[in-house]
Amino acid sequence: MKCIVLEEKTDYDGSQISSLWGYNSFGVQEDSIIIFRGACDVKIEHMIDLEDRKENESIWSEDMLSFIIEHFDSTNLKLIYARQRLFTAIVREYLADVGVSTSREGDDLFLEGKKLTVSIASTSAVSQKIHFGINVTHPVYGNLEEAGIKAGEIPGLMQEIGMRYVREFEDIEKDLRKSRPLGVV
Amino acid sequence: MKCIVLEEKTDYDGSQISSLWGYNSFGVQEDSIIIFRGACDVKIEHMIDLEDRKENESIWSEDMLSFIIEHFDSTNLKLIYARQRLFTAIVREYLADVGVSTSREGDDLFLEGKKLTVSIASTSAVSQKIHFGINVTHPVYGNLEEAGIKAGEIPGLMQEIGMRYVREFEDIEKDLRKSRPLGVV
Amino acid sequence: MKCIVLEEKTDYDGSQISSLWGYNSFGVQEDSIIIFRGACDVKIEHMIDLEDRKENESIWSEDMLSFIIEHFDSTNLKLIYARQRLFTAIVREYLADVGVSTSREGDDLFLEGKKLTVSIASTSAVSQKIHFGINVTHPVYGNLEEAGIKAGEIPGLMQEIGMRYVREFEDIEKDLRKSRPLGVV
Amino acid sequence: MKCIVLEEKTDYDGSQISSLWGYNSFGVQEDSIIIFRGACDVKIEHMIDLEDRKENESIWSEDMLSFIIEHFDSTNLKLIYARQRLFTAIVREYLADVGVSTSREGDDLFLEGKKLTVSIASTSAVSQKIHFGINVTHPVYGNLEEAGIKAGEIPGLMQEIGMRYVREFEDIEKDLRKSRPLGVV
Amino acid sequence: MKCIVLEEKTDYDGSQISSLWGYNSFGVQEDSIIIFRGACDVKIEHMIDLEDRKENESIWSEDMLSFIIEHFDSTNLKLIYARQRLFTAIVREYLADVGVSTSREGDDLFLEGKKLTVSIASTSAVSQKIHFGINVTHPVYGNLEEAGIKAGEIPGLMQEIGMRYVREFEDIEKDLRKSRPLGVV
Amino acid sequence: MKCIVLEEKTDYDGSQISSLWGYNSFGVQEDSIIIFRGACDVKIEHMIDLEDRKENESIWSEDMLSFIIEHFDSTNLKLIYARQRLFTAIVREYLADVGVSTSREGDDLFLEGKKLTVSIASTSAVSQKIHFGINVTHPVYGNLEEAGIKAGEIPGLMQEIGMRYVREFEDIEKDLRKSRPLGVV
Repeated sequence: MKCIVLEEKTDYDGSQISSLWGYNSFGVQEDSIIIFRGACDVKIEHMIDLEDRKENESIWSEDMLSFIIEHFDSTNLKLIYARQRLFTAIVREYLADVGVSTSREGDDLFLEGKKLTVSIASTSAVSQKIHFGINVTHPVYGNLEEAGIKAGEIPGLMQEIGMRYVREFEDIEKDLRKSRPLGVV
Repeated sequence: MKCIVLEEKTDYDGSQISSLWGYNSFGVQEDSIIIFRGACDVKIEHMIDLEDRKENESIWSEDMLSFIIEHFDSTNLKLIYARQRLFTAIVREYLADVGVSTSREGDDLFLEGKKLTVSIASTSAVSQKIHFGINVTHPVYGNLEEAGIKAGEIPGLMQEIGMRYVREFEDIEKDLRKSRPLGVV
Repeated sequence: MKCIVLEEKTDYDGSQISSLWGYNSFGVQEDSIIIFRGACDVKIEHMIDLEDRKENESIWSEDMLSFIIEHFDSTNLKLIYARQRLFTAIVREYLADVGVSTSREGDDLFLEGKKLTVSIASTSAVSQKIHFGINVTHPVYGNLEEAGIKAGEIPGLMQEIGMRYVREFEDIEKDLRKSRPLGVV
Repeated sequence: MKCIVLEEKTDYDGSQISSLWGYNSFGVQEDSIIIFRGACDVKIEHMIDLEDRKENESIWSEDMLSFIIEHFDSTNLKLIYARQRLFTAIVREYLADVGVSTSREGDDLFLEGKKLTVSIASTSAVSQKIHFGINVTHPVYGNLEEAGIKAGEIPGLMQEIGMRYVREFEDIEKDLRKSRPLGVV
Repeated sequence: MKCIVLEEKTDYDGSQISSLWGYNSFGVQEDSIIIFRGACDVKIEHMIDLEDRKENESIWSEDMLSFIIEHFDSTNLKLIYARQRLFTAIVREYLADVGVSTSREGDDLFLEGKKLTVSIASTSAVSQKIHFGINVTHPVYGNLEEAGIKAGEIPGLMQEIGMRYVREFEDIEKDLRKSRPLGVV
Repeated sequence: MKCIVLEEKTDYDGSQISSLWGYNSFGVQEDSIIIFRGACDVKIEHMIDLEDRKENESIWSEDMLSFIIEHFDSTNLKLIYARQRLFTAIVREYLADVGVSTSREGDDLFLEGKKLTVSIASTSAVSQKIHFGINVTHPVYGNLEEAGIKAGEIPGLMQEIGMRYVREFEDIEKDLRKSRPLGVV
């Protein structure tokens, strides 16, 4: 599994959640997590969560870190949702390690009661994907700036969260290759 | 999904990881998390992790909390391992909320560098299961007593961790019922 | 699994077979059977059965009961087709219980040789669905009026058939949680 | 899919529910339904339903028709249970057609309130199977003799029920090969 | 599984890779391999391989044999790719048997270093498909004419390669119905 | 995916087909192909193919090359059989490349009409495996010695066939990560 951190500013408009965006844009032919920073403004046609669409929700941030995860090993909805929750927990653990205390509710992190993150997960006929966004700054919602994360720390944060997910994934792949099937009562 | 906390002392010998133990012992016919407290001494024939078996590892604790999770909705190995990691993160979050700081490495929690927990996950042809054990006391390994958890807090901890997993599971089941399939580049 | 009977007249134009129609229209976040009554006129773009489409078949009824079943637990085509046949058999059993004798051929019911019902089943990347329609009146095909079902009986029929499917589904979910894997010769 | 009716008396002791029994005994290398008549006395080690095993239930009949269905196209538990319910409905429909009125509750048929049938379904790592048994005579339970089925009708009944399931299966396989995927709201 | 050789000249424009093309065009309701001969010019909207699309590759041949395989038994991407490679090997074996030596690299065959074939495989929510094309003549690429295959041999080649795949598929279906599950260390 | 060639003589008694043999013996925690040379004498309890077991077949060779493939990415029977046929074709291609002409029938290779190889494939609840054996010498069956393969060429042959399968597998994994889902008619 590959971890790619984009150096150039990249805006998230929701098109990046499409299957094969990673191959199309960067030629990556492995499962991947691609990380970038830029404005976020999700167009209605790219909204995966029907609740957002129905309520005409705006998914907007002037400065957001985006993590785009794509797996081709399964199209099972339950699996990508379990992976999404696990990724959310990994972000929370990382933030705690750098001194930022947040609380998790499902796929959301809250900073002092204010929503810090956005996330969605789904599947197509060929791959499953997660988008996870963290506000760097935001006029209303929680954001890393208010949490005391300095500008210089952002690149390291992007890289390290990405690598933690990769290591978790690879650790799981190893563990399941040494476990016997269950017995039965 | 059902959460059952056993009131009587119950020892874990590894037989409880078998598929259908929950039905056989308690007549439960839902996905479930069953939680109990007692000594832990896993017999070689119930060791699922071949690494433990090969190295003749002893999985032993005089006083352990055991969480037994069983799902019948899939026999996909990757899914039960993602769920196991997520459960481990949930335990860590709970402990942090009650003031106990631990670090997570895959499916292990460490308390000041000492291993606090044991865990295994696998599947049979009919169900998938997780065992997760937390030492209450232990002469060598990390344990809740040293972490400052008082005896009176244990029952609440058993119940609350169990319920958090149930809520997470049910929240996922709801979320995946409002998500559109991914588009494709 | 949820059973929802719509009180207002609702026409079936084929758009209701789309995945997530239940969430979008009624906010339902469980597997569901949604039942309503109204005219039926399926637009060509919503025809799932290519045979109908090729033959420019009209799927039309001035007064039809529609049952829309959606499951998110699998996208296996064989499973939704087995469920469709089972649902058809449940309708037949209910009709027999209220004194209406029909014969079943696959997913069709016939009343004295005249086709009483229409049905289709398929899957998307996120859910699997069944539409099952029963003519209340019809100038050519079999219909409940000719079968002697009185107007006042219709609401009860809609509710009871829906609930029978829910109970069947829940009964299966329980049964598969007490069955050991097969042995092997 | 193959339908085989055994001419010789064959007792059911539960070993026939094992995967590959059909290949081992008759060399059949297709999905199959194998039908025979004989005494039924299920040994405890072949009991698949843990409820029977726990309650030390006797599954016994001096004269029973047994239908053994094996599919190799999936090991999905939900699918074999949906197929089992569908088979039960098929038996009920056949009996109604020959003038025997029964009621169905899940995988059981009742004749005037007395249980006429036994059934179990499960899966191994290689195949999924159903056993469905109908009492021909029985001192306590419902049976075909009391239902007025004459001895001479039994062979035809065995053959015809088997063939109806085969036709249903083949009809499903055809139908799912002409259905477009669902649209999405 | 059905093998259909079209007698009339049929051009391949990429639309034939769509799911259900076989049913829509020929009413076939089995898994199938449909074989035809004609020009090949794949429109951009039918390009499944994003590499071709990105690089604005032309997939063009004035005279090509096309093999279109469709299976409805699974939508697993890994399975259709394994089948694609196996089909490629079958073509190579056939060509060797008629005296044409080629080398295989994945899903490509080379004739004296020149690419002789094109191929793609993928899945939708309802079926999985392979397109495999062999140049009969070509100004640049390898082709059967240069390989010494005579015009009169082409119809036999189309039929025989198709039948070899059908026999391989049916042989596999038989073999997996006589194999016990693996033991475990 | 890992390719391991054992240097020491290793006999095949059928126990090596068990799931997790690779981890247990060599600590490998990836999908793998493990290759060794030694006598072959399969014990009845390790016979996976019931045909061999029923007919009390002896699977015996005084000197055989064994290839043991294990994948943990799926437990789908159809997939492991497609992979087995593909592996067989790879062996045939390698032999052709070193000047040994064989014919393939399913999972068997024949050398001048004499069976050169044995093979079986199956799955457990945790992994899927293939055993493929090639006689180095044999009093009755085809063997590499008679085919003119020299002793000094054997180690290279073991390594190269193993690596070809690994490359094929990795090539597939890459290809399926650049393919769009199929359209639908």
